[in-house]
Amino acid sequence: MHTRVGKIISREILNWLISSSLKGISQIILIENAVTGFIILMAIMVSSLPMGIIALLSSITGTLIGKLGGADGKIVNQGIYGYNSVLTGMALSLFLKGDNRWIIALAGAAIAAIFTAAMIHIMRQVGLPVLTFPFIILTWFLLLTAYRLVSFKIDPKLAPQSLANWTLNIKGETNWLDGAVNGMGQIFFLDNNWSGILLYIAVFWAGWRFGLYAIIGNGAALLTSYALGGEHSLIFMGFYGYNAILTMIAVANVFKEGHRYALLYGILAACLTVPITASIVTWLLPYGLPALTMPFVFCTWLLLGAMKSLRSI
Amino acid sequence: MHTRVGKIISREILNWLISSSLKGISQIILIENAVTGFIILMAIMVSSLPMGIIALLSSITGTLIGKLGGADGKIVNQGIYGYNSVLTGMALSLFLKGDNRWIIALAGAAIAAIFTAAMIHIMRQVGLPVLTFPFIILTWFLLLTAYRLVSFKIDPKLAPQSLANWTLNIKGETNWLDGAVNGMGQIFFLDNNWSGILLYIAVFWAGWRFGLYAIIGNGAALLTSYALGGEHSLIFMGFYGYNAILTMIAVANVFKEGHRYALLYGILAACLTVPITASIVTWLLPYGLPALTMPFVFCTWLLLGAMKSLRSI
Amino acid sequence: MHTRVGKIISREILNWLISSSLKGISQIILIENAVTGFIILMAIMVSSLPMGIIALLSSITGTLIGKLGGADGKIVNQGIYGYNSVLTGMALSLFLKGDNRWIIALAGAAIAAIFTAAMIHIMRQVGLPVLTFPFIILTWFLLLTAYRLVSFKIDPKLAPQSLANWTLNIKGETNWLDGAVNGMGQIFFLDNNWSGILLYIAVFWAGWRFGLYAIIGNGAALLTSYALGGEHSLIFMGFYGYNAILTMIAVANVFKEGHRYALLYGILAACLTVPITASIVTWLLPYGLPALTMPFVFCTWLLLGAMKSLRSI
Repeated sequence: MHTRVGKIISREILNWLISSSLKGISQIILIENAVTGFIILMAIMVSSLPMGIIALLSSITGTLIGKLGGADGKIVNQGIYGYNSVLTGMALSLFLKGDNRWIIALAGAAIAAIFTAAMIHIMRQVGLPVLTFPFIILTWFLLLTAYRLVSFKIDPKLAPQSLANWTLNIKGETNWLDGAVNGMGQIFFLDNNWSGILLYIAVFWAGWRFGLYAIIGNGAALLTSYALGGEHSLIFMGFYGYNAILTMIAVANVFKEGHRYALLYGILAACLTVPITASIVTWLLPYGLPALTMPFVFCTWLLLGAMKSLRSI
Repeated sequence: MHTRVGKIISREILNWLISSSLKGISQIILIENAVTGFIILMAIMVSSLPMGIIALLSSITGTLIGKLGGADGKIVNQGIYGYNSVLTGMALSLFLKGDNRWIIALAGAAIAAIFTAAMIHIMRQVGLPVLTFPFIILTWFLLLTAYRLVSFKIDPKLAPQSLANWTLNIKGETNWLDGAVNGMGQIFFLDNNWSGILLYIAVFWAGWRFGLYAIIGNGAALLTSYALGGEHSLIFMGFYGYNAILTMIAVANVFKEGHRYALLYGILAACLTVPITASIVTWLLPYGLPALTMPFVFCTWLLLGAMKSLRSI
Repeated sequence: MHTRVGKIISREILNWLISSSLKGISQIILIENAVTGFIILMAIMVSSLPMGIIALLSSITGTLIGKLGGADGKIVNQGIYGYNSVLTGMALSLFLKGDNRWIIALAGAAIAAIFTAAMIHIMRQVGLPVLTFPFIILTWFLLLTAYRLVSFKIDPKLAPQSLANWTLNIKGETNWLDGAVNGMGQIFFLDNNWSGILLYIAVFWAGWRFGLYAIIGNGAALLTSYALGGEHSLIFMGFYGYNAILTMIAVANVFKEGHRYALLYGILAACLTVPITASIVTWLLPYGLPALTMPFVFCTWLLLGAMKSLRSI
């Protein structure tokens, strides 16, 4: 009898853990849906199996820290303690070299969950969401340790460069189809076309509106960055698109369904991410760091904050 | 009948718009006075007609966004949604090159109003004013986009430079009269003496105390920067004075009229802007960006924040 | 009669001032104890008499500003208005050159107290302590003024360096005993062994738990930085230890005496300061600035903030 009850309980716990962790993966694109999380996980694994394993383990780590730490249970179940951990774990696995990077990635995932807890407390005061701020700051900090601690080996492609020596050359192939798929992939550090298509399926699964927002947000960024004269190689790698997709979803989603201007405000926000991306990359050039999703965080905070004062919007 | 009523209404709206937009210009020096705003506008036009047009259009843009967005009407009428837009519009017209800079300037003015709305919400929590923070951050970001988007052409004078290569040479002509006028002009990016004199008239029009604060604040900065050994060319261009004027007015103005120490605290705050200006310029050297009014924002927040804890001041 | 009463009053005031100022010195290591403050003062004087005088005068300056400014009396008596002033006064005396540095140091101590007042107001909103944030930011700013004002002469050892030119070489002597003492000394910019021993006496005087935390925190940082491959010369100079000691005390101290995990969380926090120190030093490399106690501030805010959301900790 007892063992059977025990089995049922542990199966329940396992179900909860898997479901919350998959939601943690889907929360990266501001969606709470375990199936979407699962398809995204597949998209990552198609591109790299170890990366997929790290993503899942990171989400489990973050979710467990939230649960065992005694965070608001409802929030933990929604995957809110998972998504910063997933992104941190994946980014560190990708931008660091050496075998120990898997351990650093999981330790980073754990710290990301603690950082998320701190930011939830701080941002509650201003009524704005945490978004991916903990992931961005923590990843930047852990990558820069490589200049002082030999056990951290940063990818040599992330080379610091003086802004004084920088020259802009935007020429390159234009490939709109690649751009359409890659913007989605870049959210998860993926540049595989199959992964990109799987990601779109994952988003559409959660609701056609999410899928529509993703396509429109990415398209707005592609056109804006092309019109403003961004580097073609970066544009069609999805470099300008991924922040626009996230911002579009975050901004359009705060409006009630059927709001007249939801789409318009979302598109404006998506376009704004393009110059913001360009300048954040410039700020980071002397440190050789990637922009990650900081443009999304800035633009979304800007618009959600403004809505608190501009009450007719 | 109907058209007459319509005319009266549209004339009323126009009056409101012009009055609020001129107040938006006067709010740059923390004054709410449409006539002062008008004289400032003249001072700008004396120096450059297109710059004056951009200033007015930017203020109108910001004010309309505040009004149509549904911000607190009282605040919009005071010009609070205008001044960051005016400064952003003018700074972008000045520091960017190319014909498209007028469009970028107006787009920047619009974003500045949205940023102001967000900051009003955030700063309400700590009980401190927004000041020119949105203008500064937004202008820095939009100038830096030039390194990644060819349609933004930054003035080559704003050249990034490694701090390691920097050598300080303070020698240069000393011209105290120029210094007295230029500090005021620099608030509005003007180095024309006639403009400087018109600006003093604008300030005195709003009240002799404002005029006095401006003269004393600028004088305090001139003497402090000279005594501490700043670059003469910069001192007498008003480079150290303009933040001191703004800080002096902001700090002295929170005290009730006739407060014993209002003037003293104002002067101390004005002197403090000198080392803060020197260090902000140094932080920005690797990016080639101008300090704008960040020293004013830092010093004013510092002193107003301190007053909340130091209750006898 | 009257003069006798007057004498008693002025003696009382003097007693209060000395006691509060010595507590201001002890608050640097988060301890409120005048005797501990006195022993620390001795430790500083053993290393350098003028530095000790500046430390005491800075603490008196900060405490008087708090008192005369009308801050909460209880907080002033605890030395809260003193410790940022002491650190700022000492850091400026140490990192600036020239005879005028003593004046700059005392002026800096005064501004630090005003900055502390402002931060007490701001941090009250999020329920986190001010820690040494005002000291760090103010010292960084005042050191950087040296690039623009000739009267500030920065120590040439604080040379800015492009991150692109940086190469890491960790080889150097390993001296664990030096490391054990130096971590404590570095909190007060001291590298004298006798001073280090006096500092341990000061901490143990305040309570054996504080002493234990200091030893364990420093040990955790020594081992972590060695294991992660930090520069040996820096490790054994106490470069990684001092932030760990402060963080360990700050974090372990918020738990009730006898809490099961207080020690564990303190040690984890202490270990976390190591990569954070490595990255803050990297961020500052292009400016040639020292990390000061920023790693301590970041890690402590991170953990105390997280505890507000993670209620079972």
